[in-house]
Amino acid sequence: MKEEVQDWFKELQHNICQQLEEADSKGKFIHDVWDRPGGGGGDTRLLSNGKIIEKGGVNFSAVWGKTPEHVLRSLQLPADEPSEFFATGVSIVMHPVSPMVPIIHMNIRYFEMSNDTWWFGGGIDLTPHYVQADDAKYFHQRLKAVCDEHHPTYYGEFKRWADDYFFLKHRNETRGIGGIFFDYLKGEPPFSRKSRFDFVKAVGNLFAPIYTHLMTKNHQLPYGEKEKQWQNLRRGRYVEFNLVWDRGTKFGLDTEGRTESILMSLPPLAVWAYNYQPEPSSEEERTLNLLRKGIDWVNS
Amino acid sequence: MKEEVQDWFKELQHNICQQLEEADSKGKFIHDVWDRPGGGGGDTRLLSNGKIIEKGGVNFSAVWGKTPEHVLRSLQLPADEPSEFFATGVSIVMHPVSPMVPIIHMNIRYFEMSNDTWWFGGGIDLTPHYVQADDAKYFHQRLKAVCDEHHPTYYGEFKRWADDYFFLKHRNETRGIGGIFFDYLKGEPPFSRKSRFDFVKAVGNLFAPIYTHLMTKNHQLPYGEKEKQWQNLRRGRYVEFNLVWDRGTKFGLDTEGRTESILMSLPPLAVWAYNYQPEPSSEEERTLNLLRKGIDWVNS
Repeated sequence: MKEEVQDWFKELQHNICQQLEEADSKGKFIHDVWDRPGGGGGDTRLLSNGKIIEKGGVNFSAVWGKTPEHVLRSLQLPADEPSEFFATGVSIVMHPVSPMVPIIHMNIRYFEMSNDTWWFGGGIDLTPHYVQADDAKYFHQRLKAVCDEHHPTYYGEFKRWADDYFFLKHRNETRGIGGIFFDYLKGEPPFSRKSRFDFVKAVGNLFAPIYTHLMTKNHQLPYGEKEKQWQNLRRGRYVEFNLVWDRGTKFGLDTEGRTESILMSLPPLAVWAYNYQPEPSSEEERTLNLLRKGIDWVNS
Repeated sequence: MKEEVQDWFKELQHNICQQLEEADSKGKFIHDVWDRPGGGGGDTRLLSNGKIIEKGGVNFSAVWGKTPEHVLRSLQLPADEPSEFFATGVSIVMHPVSPMVPIIHMNIRYFEMSNDTWWFGGGIDLTPHYVQADDAKYFHQRLKAVCDEHHPTYYGEFKRWADDYFFLKHRNETRGIGGIFFDYLKGEPPFSRKSRFDFVKAVGNLFAPIYTHLMTKNHQLPYGEKEKQWQNLRRGRYVEFNLVWDRGTKFGLDTEGRTESILMSLPPLAVWAYNYQPEPSSEEERTLNLLRKGIDWVNS
């Protein structure tokens, strides 16, 4: 199973990069292949200064070895028991040039331990600088359709989880319009490893069509200095989420993960202004008011 | 004692703002007075777009009330015991326009609990975009002189503490050239509350002369686009330290502190580039090689 998941993830990385390059029409991914001292490694792909994508990364990794103590502790397993782990995943973040194109994030991952424990996790979420109702509806409809094909409770459960996860407590704001987030998808009946993997594959396959659609649709919309400044402030919030609240980022930085691959999620540039308040009734204020948990985007 | 410390801190804030405005010659601090729902409040002062200072904050706060459970836990006290706390402090971060002027941070604070526990904490550290040997020596000599006046072990101990504290583990870099950091300065003999407070006052009084000296000395040094880009990348590191490692920031954001006052420490603008490496033998590489613990700046 390990090899099957890993091979499929690697192939997905390849396909996504190809489709993003095609949609961008200018930017090309550089490849950075790296080894992990304790076992395994990764392939970090980065596109900079494209026509539509300003900075974006598509990371693949497959790492294994002795299970670190902190992982055993977090799983409430005895820290002194000899144990091997295997983890593989694909992680994507795209920061577009235009404030009219949303930031997007996707991650899918698979974890296995020598005691036969295994699970899948992942998610996709969208962070528009300006929330556009038709895009938000399109995005959630596509996610819901894929979830519904695999289990009737998936969308509702994973959408709520995304609302709770992609949340900046210190700002009382969601990061964007959410999406889906899931973790610890194991093999309890009626689920099998195959049915969980099928779902994760479907989520992975959803990324390129969704984002290339939003790129193509929005990158020619007009904008000016005001929209660019707002984008930079929203990128500041993206930095705050990733460095303060994102568990994956914190875990990676705290446990000697590959820093450059982890922090490829940060924007090329971000701005902070003290106590910035958008103008009343502006587009910026309208977007800020939509960064709330619990909005039913599918029926909005 | 509470009132005495609080009044002295407030006065210090006033004096520092005045001296910074004078040295900057253009920027003026705005005042933002706020209340804390549970008791107390603060006075956040922010200077933007000065001649020398691009964005800088000088915060005063004095807060009190029921001791939060997490504070009791962190002090290993029973979480269900009724207890009142009082905390007051001054926090400063300055981000200059010119990459030839260093970023500086200072904090002094006093904490008291209803069970008669009290302590002082604080520190000053300097983050040059380009390390200049004479400035680094000047900075540490001034700190050492003040420490030595108060106790022979202070400088060595607090300098080491700063090296350990202002450290980006995920980059294996110190934030800058360090300085001094201290916490839990209590009344164990030979120390009294008065002798600890005298030391903290001396640290507070050191800030304005040190930083106005560095502002005046360096702001007219020439620089170009390359130095500006490097400054933006180093500001990215400053963001990483404050959001990932700084205990005060994390504590504040996690416990419903006033977000805008806490995050005034962030730069006006920051840049991230994937796997950026300075040119061999460049000034940027030379600085990077000096971001190490344990350098004896006084005798360098």
